Amino acid sequence: MGVNASDVPTATTCDHYCNQTLESRHKDGGVNNYIIYGFPYSTNTWRALAVLNEKGLPYTRIKVDLRSGEQKKQPFLSINPFGQVPVLKDGEFKLAESRAISEYLETAHRSSGSQLLDHESYKTMGTQKMWIYIESFKFDPPSTILNYEQAIKPLMGLKTDYKLVNETVPKLEKVLDVYEERLKNSSFLAGESFTLADLYHLPNIQNLMGTPSKILFETRPSVHRWVANITARPAWKKACDVNW
Amino acid sequence: MGVNASDVPTATTCDHYCNQTLESRHKDGGVNNYIIYGFPYSTNTWRALAVLNEKGLPYTRIKVDLRSGEQKKQPFLSINPFGQVPVLKDGEFKLAESRAISEYLETAHRSSGSQLLDHESYKTMGTQKMWIYIESFKFDPPSTILNYEQAIKPLMGLKTDYKLVNETVPKLEKVLDVYEERLKNSSFLAGESFTLADLYHLPNIQNLMGTPSKILFETRPSVHRWVANITARPAWKKACDVNW
Repeated sequence: MGVNASDVPTATTCDHYCNQTLESRHKDGGVNNYIIYGFPYSTNTWRALAVLNEKGLPYTRIKVDLRSGEQKKQPFLSINPFGQVPVLKDGEFKLAESRAISEYLETAHRSSGSQLLDHESYKTMGTQKMWIYIESFKFDPPSTILNYEQAIKPLMGLKTDYKLVNETVPKLEKVLDVYEERLKNSSFLAGESFTLADLYHLPNIQNLMGTPSKILFETRPSVHRWVANITARPAWKKACDVNW
Repeated sequence: MGVNASDVPTATTCDHYCNQTLESRHKDGGVNNYIIYGFPYSTNTWRALAVLNEKGLPYTRIKVDLRSGEQKKQPFLSINPFGQVPVLKDGEFKLAESRAISEYLETAHRSSGSQLLDHESYKTMGTQKMWIYIESFKFDPPSTILNYEQAIKPLMGLKTDYKLVNETVPKLEKVLDVYEERLKNSSFLAGESFTLADLYHLPNIQNLMGTPSKILFETRPSVHRWVANITARPAWKKACDVNW
């Protein structure tokens, strides 16, 4: 454990939420602070917060109440017409999609905090991008279904579709079999250092480790070592603290 | 039409295929040429070839016969354990995932051919990345289902699942409604120039324009103008020529 583990850089984090309109909440963000529109239980929000924490960047969190569907109504739809969190705001500049936010922050602040991509070597960055897209297209689809069915639906009082779970488990197993081979010889997916490629997996893994699907990770020793390592990062623990 | 259209840069392209082993075919690639393992009807292969064409880079195509399942057997599995094309090879360096290949080529050859990302402005690149991930997570899932059911299955002699098609069409419509609003005021998704964000949409659009789902694009005037514009690019027409 602890290969390439880094302390979370100290950051001035200002968290604020009350019964204001979205717009007035927005104005609370200082000009030097990033604003994240998100929700404490949103796994995609955790992804963006983890990067802000890893980079040691100050930010203000603005809660968009997903329980009441605030994200699907104005004024939020004018911030993101897809009606989803997180959204990053920096003055007038705004960005949706947690992975785009992550890559923007890593690129713009490459010398701050943890280095999450290699900006010096095109080939190393190419390998990192390959694992980033493996997460998007191989890991995310089955793990999002399993997360939704087993972790989110019970929270919402909805019934898990076990037929869908049983159809999806073998798809995730096939992906994790490739990961196991990779991680036998590599501390992290894209090499010997923790990168965005690992970080992008954290939200679904975090939830799945609280469901019966945790066995898929625990029965693969190298995957299990990797999961223990990346979920223990202080920046991650701070990102998925739901008390805000 | 034709906003930011660029001529395809002249490139020396060497295409070669015969009854060799994968390994001997690999050795045919010159040291200064990129090698693409792919298949003429593979939409993901077209994506990587389009970038090579846009950048004016020389390459050798090596056919992996998806009809006989060559991609799911050795020796190809040692090239990509996920058993999918395309794979880019440059000497000993290899890369899977068409979007990772695309971003590697664009980054490593930023001053060649068409400029497909803005490497000077973090914010502009951030917006481009946002539209890249919108393609990955919003457009690709429904459009891949519609492509598979309506274009690929008939080619393979399989029966289209019309119930699935009917469930998927409204999902793609919701995405295209957002695109329509965006493209009313913007020549391309990420701004006034053609980027990888547009290019990534081409494979599924190309196939869907030959199916009943083309109406989803044609009934949205700004989307229709954009589709006509990006599918007309010479680099794209060359990429999806199946005669190799």
